[in-house]
Amino acid sequence: MRIAIDMDEVLADPIHKFIQLYNRDYGVPLNLAMEPGKEFYHHVPEHINNKWFEYINEKGFFRDLPVIDGSVEAVKKLQEKHEIYIVSAAMEFRNSLEDKLDWLAEHFPFIGWRNIMFCGDKIVNVDVIIDDRAKNFVGISGRKLLFTSPHNLLLNDYERVNTWSEVLDKLL
Amino acid sequence: MRIAIDMDEVLADPIHKFIQLYNRDYGVPLNLAMEPGKEFYHHVPEHINNKWFEYINEKGFFRDLPVIDGSVEAVKKLQEKHEIYIVSAAMEFRNSLEDKLDWLAEHFPFIGWRNIMFCGDKIVNVDVIIDDRAKNFVGISGRKLLFTSPHNLLLNDYERVNTWSEVLDKLL
Repeated sequence: MRIAIDMDEVLADPIHKFIQLYNRDYGVPLNLAMEPGKEFYHHVPEHINNKWFEYINEKGFFRDLPVIDGSVEAVKKLQEKHEIYIVSAAMEFRNSLEDKLDWLAEHFPFIGWRNIMFCGDKIVNVDVIIDDRAKNFVGISGRKLLFTSPHNLLLNDYERVNTWSEVLDKLL
Repeated sequence: MRIAIDMDEVLADPIHKFIQLYNRDYGVPLNLAMEPGKEFYHHVPEHINNKWFEYINEKGFFRDLPVIDGSVEAVKKLQEKHEIYIVSAAMEFRNSLEDKLDWLAEHFPFIGWRNIMFCGDKIVNVDVIIDDRAKNFVGISGRKLLFTSPHNLLLNDYERVNTWSEVLDKLL
């Protein structure tokens, strides 16, 4: 099977980084509670809720994101049985491209360049896609696994995976 | 229709740049004759025929490539009727990513970030792919147009387009 795996909020954790930066600059609490169905920027004061767009466009933002729990081992196991592609909608952020590639080389060195794709629309031909954004399922004919993140908790129309351990239960 | 268009040797001309650099460093003639079926590096002395791999990995290599004749106007016309994606196997060359994106922004500013894809394998779901490398046709179910370049002149198994004008004749 050919499997497309998203990066942000699936392999890498940008939310944690955003909150750290908002904490540093505006004192937003590090244990910011996230309501179901909301993005993290819905939980910061209105006059600074666009600041994330500046952070994300800075060189280095994506280079040191924490790795999502269990993802490295899980992707390694999936790769033994399946054809794995990392497919990230990185093209919106020019300064993210090298950082994302370097991040993958550090944490997922077993993924070769042929299996990495930075795109806008995910017009990929795959049997399974694992993504936290339902918009990336548009036009995908394969199986869609919605990787749980606070912002998608209210969606009920998709097959959901809450952890990498659940992904392995479904795909191995 | 959804159309995937390759960059190198289809929109951008790296061969011209390679020959310029070989001319600068080794006196290789600027009007280097290219034999059908051969890559340009088959035409330079053996002790320097790997040098291209250093050139291509340098920052800036892809930033000032000449635009292939007629490509800008042709892609603009195609975009009026079709869904156009630029799909480049850029992932092999980390230092090419920003240069390629900046080059597209300069010469093809009408292509938005959603319609740009840097990948390894071209696992795209498209109706038409335009590419000079037959290896990129593997697994593509849509129509395949082989864009003529000296290295592919001996291939007879594909529908061929020699110029952007021929592409328009076929797709408009």
